[in-house]
Amino acid sequence: MTSYKLLLLPGDGIGTEIMAEVKTVIDWFGARGVASFEYEQDLVGGSAYDAHGKAVSEETMAKALAADAVIFGAVGGPKWDSVPYDVRPEAALLRLRKDLQLFANLRPAICYPALADASSLKRELVEGLDILIVRELTGGVYFGEPKEIVTLENGQKRAVDTQLYTTSEIERIARVAFDLAKTRSSKVASAEKRNVMKSGVLWNQVVTKIGKEEYPDVALEHVLADNCAMQLVRRPKQYDVIVCDNLFGDILSDVAAMLTGSLGMLPSASLGAPDATTGRRKALYEPVHGSAPDIAGKGVANPIAMIASFAMALRYSFGLGAEADLLDRAIAGVLGKGLRTADIFTEGTTRVGTKEMGAAILAEL
Amino acid sequence: MTSYKLLLLPGDGIGTEIMAEVKTVIDWFGARGVASFEYEQDLVGGSAYDAHGKAVSEETMAKALAADAVIFGAVGGPKWDSVPYDVRPEAALLRLRKDLQLFANLRPAICYPALADASSLKRELVEGLDILIVRELTGGVYFGEPKEIVTLENGQKRAVDTQLYTTSEIERIARVAFDLAKTRSSKVASAEKRNVMKSGVLWNQVVTKIGKEEYPDVALEHVLADNCAMQLVRRPKQYDVIVCDNLFGDILSDVAAMLTGSLGMLPSASLGAPDATTGRRKALYEPVHGSAPDIAGKGVANPIAMIASFAMALRYSFGLGAEADLLDRAIAGVLGKGLRTADIFTEGTTRVGTKEMGAAILAEL
Ligand SMILES: CC(C)[C@H](C(=O)O)[C@@H](O)C(=O)O
Ligand SMILES: CC(C)[C@H](C(=O)O)[C@@H](O)C(=O)O
Repeated sequence: MTSYKLLLLPGDGIGTEIMAEVKTVIDWFGARGVASFEYEQDLVGGSAYDAHGKAVSEETMAKALAADAVIFGAVGGPKWDSVPYDVRPEAALLRLRKDLQLFANLRPAICYPALADASSLKRELVEGLDILIVRELTGGVYFGEPKEIVTLENGQKRAVDTQLYTTSEIERIARVAFDLAKTRSSKVASAEKRNVMKSGVLWNQVVTKIGKEEYPDVALEHVLADNCAMQLVRRPKQYDVIVCDNLFGDILSDVAAMLTGSLGMLPSASLGAPDATTGRRKALYEPVHGSAPDIAGKGVANPIAMIASFAMALRYSFGLGAEADLLDRAIAGVLGKGLRTADIFTEGTTRVGTKEMGAAILAEL
Repeated sequence: MTSYKLLLLPGDGIGTEIMAEVKTVIDWFGARGVASFEYEQDLVGGSAYDAHGKAVSEETMAKALAADAVIFGAVGGPKWDSVPYDVRPEAALLRLRKDLQLFANLRPAICYPALADASSLKRELVEGLDILIVRELTGGVYFGEPKEIVTLENGQKRAVDTQLYTTSEIERIARVAFDLAKTRSSKVASAEKRNVMKSGVLWNQVVTKIGKEEYPDVALEHVLADNCAMQLVRRPKQYDVIVCDNLFGDILSDVAAMLTGSLGMLPSASLGAPDATTGRRKALYEPVHGSAPDIAGKGVANPIAMIASFAMALRYSFGLGAEADLLDRAIAGVLGKGLRTADIFTEGTTRVGTKEMGAAILAEL
């Protein structure tokens, strides 16, 4: 039986509560004998800053690098709003993405039929929605240098960020998108701003070339990022896989997530390249929602996005697609029975807390 | 009677058809004697490229610089998709913005009650929506240098764009937003990505300072750009004035526009700083929608956004607020009577073409 090492990083706010539910799910799959999961838990984000002045310690980074998968909660909160830029909670996430070289961020936006009414869009526009945003995660304006604020002679300040992409960075994320498209409806939309950005021009050229030469059977469409944001609001079901850079991916995936009406449901996977000899890839799984400091500690947070993130780990890190399907079905099943945490509660359904939702999913399994 | 010089640049696609309707409106206001309007028309975008190989000629630029206001249609279309980057249709718009120093882009997103059902959002979420996006228009990643694609030794290409903001660039756009907020509900949301961008950090600091020192009575909220996009979809009416940089403004204003369900209705104004001696400011007015090449020449395009752009010119360039209100009311009146161009047509309303819509607005005036 294969053995996997997981690093659990609950982070701040509701992170700890929802991670507790994931542990019961991991244990269940371990007990079932599909694989053996060893896990260790550590601090990250604001709580790590409080403990040792850094958003992520070197020891934690070493553990993350050694792990088969990192399961990440959420970081940040008003408490750390004025800590220095370099040690702010988000710095931990950026460092993990960069050092583990997690260049491919997969963000599914799925609208569960049971929750379609929670969307701010009309039901018919979102019912059955199933989009996968493939976001480049280790390049672009997030990491390009120079990235600085300098004080000019006249006392003015000047801030610079650098949007930077190379051919190979675009090629590898394009391949991830095309490969995933082949397992879905063989359709990719590539979003950039080629009309104003040189990185958009290169992005467009490289994606076009990879599509033509390596994936002639996948339909490729190019869309300007601003128009893509619009089209997501107008008629989201026209899209299947959307591939884009780090910054556009940040915004477009949030828009897509919000269309579903249930942010508390959406997982994400951040993947590295498969190792040349072992075939294993570094990976981090995290919910799309944030640390929700306003409801932290109250036992009302929705653990589903966090649990669904572990389902993505089963699929993409452990090759356990059938088990991932099982877990996804358990989630859908519990929703079908009318159980709802506060964020997705509507008249006529049964309101439950974090622990009850976790337990219900276990029971459904 | 004050005399104003207008430069009309219809551009490509439906530009010419909708500009023809604006002319009748300009003539009406001229005949009414509120001011005297002289206008001249010229080529821009793809049609200028076809005529003389550049998206905007030096003569046209000189006329634009001399005009009291530029009334701009729309540029671009598949015909010019593969012209060189420097002479692509959009280059004209960027050059006009830059050379006329039109740093403040005002994009109202208004949901007309008569059209609320056209929104993809539920009616109650958008009915009465009235957001004003104030977008910085001459800085950021649109214009920062370096902006280039270089070929590396290994044959790879490397594309760079530079996001760049100085204190004074942020100060002046912040003041525009705060000033406008004072004429509305005294509420500004400033959107950036301070958690990953140094320009976001500076943006946040400068807007905070201007707010505190110069506009203590305006409520200021900071929101991350990705979250702002989400919140626009979730509960758009929480916003009134949103101020943001060039690239975020591009996307957020498109999302806001799409929420209203009627892109063909939305105007925009791009303003320079008032001249120190004359008080006049350079300005360009254009609809938010594009050149719609698919329906060009068919006489079915909606001229309202273009006409409403002239209403913004009356207000912001000519100090004719009452006349602007009159024109806005005429537009609302025509909609109230059930007249609709194809893009906003619904069961039970009367479908009209471009010319009929223009004539109806004139009649209403
Ligand atoms: C927390 C923040 C740094 C992060 C990002 O901007 O990438 C978040 O918004 C996300 O999308 O994962
Ligand atoms: C046409 C294009 C260059 C332009 C922009 O990106 O600014 C457009 O999208 C806009 O919003 O005015």
